[in-house]
Amino acid sequence: MNNFVYDIPVKVYFGQNQLHHLGEELAKYGRRVLLTYGGGSIKRIGLYDEVMKQLKEGGFEVYELSGIEPNPRIESVREGAEMCKRHGIDVLLAVGGGSTIDATKFMAAGACVDHDPWDFLSEKWAPIEKALPIISILTLSATGSEMDSGGVISNPETQDKIGRMAPPMLPKVSFLDPTATYSVSKFQTACGAADMMSHILEVYFNMEQDLYMLDCFMEGMMKTIIRYTPIAMEQPDNYEARANLMWTSSWAINGFIDGGKRQAWSCHPIEHELSAYYDITHGLGLAIVTPRWMEHCLDETTVSKYVQFAVNVFGVDASLPPMQIAREGISRLSDFFFKTLGLQSALSEIGIDRTHFPIMARKACGKGVLKGFKHLVPADVEKIFEMSL
Amino acid sequence: MNNFVYDIPVKVYFGQNQLHHLGEELAKYGRRVLLTYGGGSIKRIGLYDEVMKQLKEGGFEVYELSGIEPNPRIESVREGAEMCKRHGIDVLLAVGGGSTIDATKFMAAGACVDHDPWDFLSEKWAPIEKALPIISILTLSATGSEMDSGGVISNPETQDKIGRMAPPMLPKVSFLDPTATYSVSKFQTACGAADMMSHILEVYFNMEQDLYMLDCFMEGMMKTIIRYTPIAMEQPDNYEARANLMWTSSWAINGFIDGGKRQAWSCHPIEHELSAYYDITHGLGLAIVTPRWMEHCLDETTVSKYVQFAVNVFGVDASLPPMQIAREGISRLSDFFFKTLGLQSALSEIGIDRTHFPIMARKACGKGVLKGFKHLVPADVEKIFEMSL
Repeated sequence: MNNFVYDIPVKVYFGQNQLHHLGEELAKYGRRVLLTYGGGSIKRIGLYDEVMKQLKEGGFEVYELSGIEPNPRIESVREGAEMCKRHGIDVLLAVGGGSTIDATKFMAAGACVDHDPWDFLSEKWAPIEKALPIISILTLSATGSEMDSGGVISNPETQDKIGRMAPPMLPKVSFLDPTATYSVSKFQTACGAADMMSHILEVYFNMEQDLYMLDCFMEGMMKTIIRYTPIAMEQPDNYEARANLMWTSSWAINGFIDGGKRQAWSCHPIEHELSAYYDITHGLGLAIVTPRWMEHCLDETTVSKYVQFAVNVFGVDASLPPMQIAREGISRLSDFFFKTLGLQSALSEIGIDRTHFPIMARKACGKGVLKGFKHLVPADVEKIFEMSL
Repeated sequence: MNNFVYDIPVKVYFGQNQLHHLGEELAKYGRRVLLTYGGGSIKRIGLYDEVMKQLKEGGFEVYELSGIEPNPRIESVREGAEMCKRHGIDVLLAVGGGSTIDATKFMAAGACVDHDPWDFLSEKWAPIEKALPIISILTLSATGSEMDSGGVISNPETQDKIGRMAPPMLPKVSFLDPTATYSVSKFQTACGAADMMSHILEVYFNMEQDLYMLDCFMEGMMKTIIRYTPIAMEQPDNYEARANLMWTSSWAINGFIDGGKRQAWSCHPIEHELSAYYDITHGLGLAIVTPRWMEHCLDETTVSKYVQFAVNVFGVDASLPPMQIAREGISRLSDFFFKTLGLQSALSEIGIDRTHFPIMARKACGKGVLKGFKHLVPADVEKIFEMSL
């Protein structure tokens, strides 16, 4: 078990009608606010008007940057950083899902430096020592960006999609209102669930000696996702379902479950290549890749973790032979993604063929080896892509 | 499900040999340190020397207050608050278990006011608006004081034992080193486990609609306590066991599991009367009272929660009739406390008779009704005491 530092000072207002606290929280950081959002769904659900009402009542000077893309692009980040500098912004208010919050984080960091924000993500890996304060209002349960310090940005020019974490980018305050996710479509609800599931599996599948109490928590969160996602898809305004998914999205990736483990993610770097090359929904890519990755990594040395997963999360009969239990676990997970949630189960179904597999596999392995649950070289990743076809 | 605010900005250094960070953390708050501790066990295990070495290297001006009692007394709090004022203390460093940290919190608050610190706890309920910063180094997994804003103080003159939470008393930083608990006796390890178990049960037993993901987490923590306490008692230097118990002690009561529920504790106010009148170990009193309280509150309206507990925590056969499952759950919990952990199972075994039952029951009910899982009036509490005899 490794030492760790736990430090998650994000304040969360959870529940309905909490936005009347927005003004008091923003005012701690200043008067000039950059409001960022995506494609306008926040106008459709009335959230934009509610936010503007609060901002007006609080007497804030508001600048707006809309149109942040899913798989947010460096161009939006550049624009946001530029606006912060031009208008002397004090605090950024991100209203949306993970893409909006991710992009806003890099705007906040970009506002504090003279160089191109892509330098944070390119090989230059410029230091992120400061960022303007960020407050978020979440509208999609998925990435956990509302309670972590990371973000993922795409650069269509270079076909790169790169993630990075840095403590200054941690939101100061996040507003989590389950009713703000009522209008999320079945498909996006399912993709969000796959994303959360993957965040947990990336940490859970680990052969280090670790904290059993955290394994129990991860199993509990996975059971929560399995229980409530179908309900949220069938009854989009089921508060209990939306609330459970929302709070789980934050805790699946805020750092708590990593305690005592080395970080060693596999499916996310693999999937990032898919969405970099094909701009697919991140959660969908994860759903397709994850069970194949599990299959690829299963052997006598790793089987015990699969058994723990299958028995504790899916209630597979513990008296069966371990390899059978493990395969049953993978099969149940596939069924959850592709039957229960109805997600497409193969890359070929979403227009991806093997054209770019070799280059994507090499890029996923960065400097040659993807050091995850099992270490993967480009040939392994190519095989996982082939299995996913 | 109720709205809630999540806000736990305590930074935790978890693991071995992390004390080299002590100086940098203290220095954020100043140079004059009041070091507080209990009966000297920190000297026996070498922790005192290690702390003093760090303080010396950091060039801090150190004042010491030792001898803080289990069930810490207002007299110690008064002395500490006085020392803070006299020496212009900048930051308090509590080294010990929950008693030391609890007392230190009220010293830190007392240092910021002109009145007697007991006014924070007496009927005056003086506001706690400020406190000097606190850093803690934990040596006993039990109360969770290292990551919450509360404390419980005894006043032997009035035979009161009263708890209170206040955000300014939240530690800024806590050091959790599982090896610092290696020397904790079997009995104190068992009492600590009972205390943690009770912190969880007080929240878990609740009939409000709530967050399933948090129920899963609570069940996971209870399974962790059940799994690792016997190991820690038999192998006091088992790192995995001590680490799991230590991190569970913090999360059992730092506020996370309360999300969406109204606070409604029962066994703690009942036990506080026992330790106020008889100065018994808090965890032991909780172990004796808790199963009887569960028995008293079991009926057709509450049985579903007992079933969930028995099945998910103790693996009781879910196909049995609900009342039978519920009783089996209580019986397994009793066995855990009184057989597995070997704690005394009755008040009469620890020298408590019914002399003060009526007055203790009245005091436990405060203004007449103890509004917990089931509302209790003094006659109910007296019955629970009688069942515990």
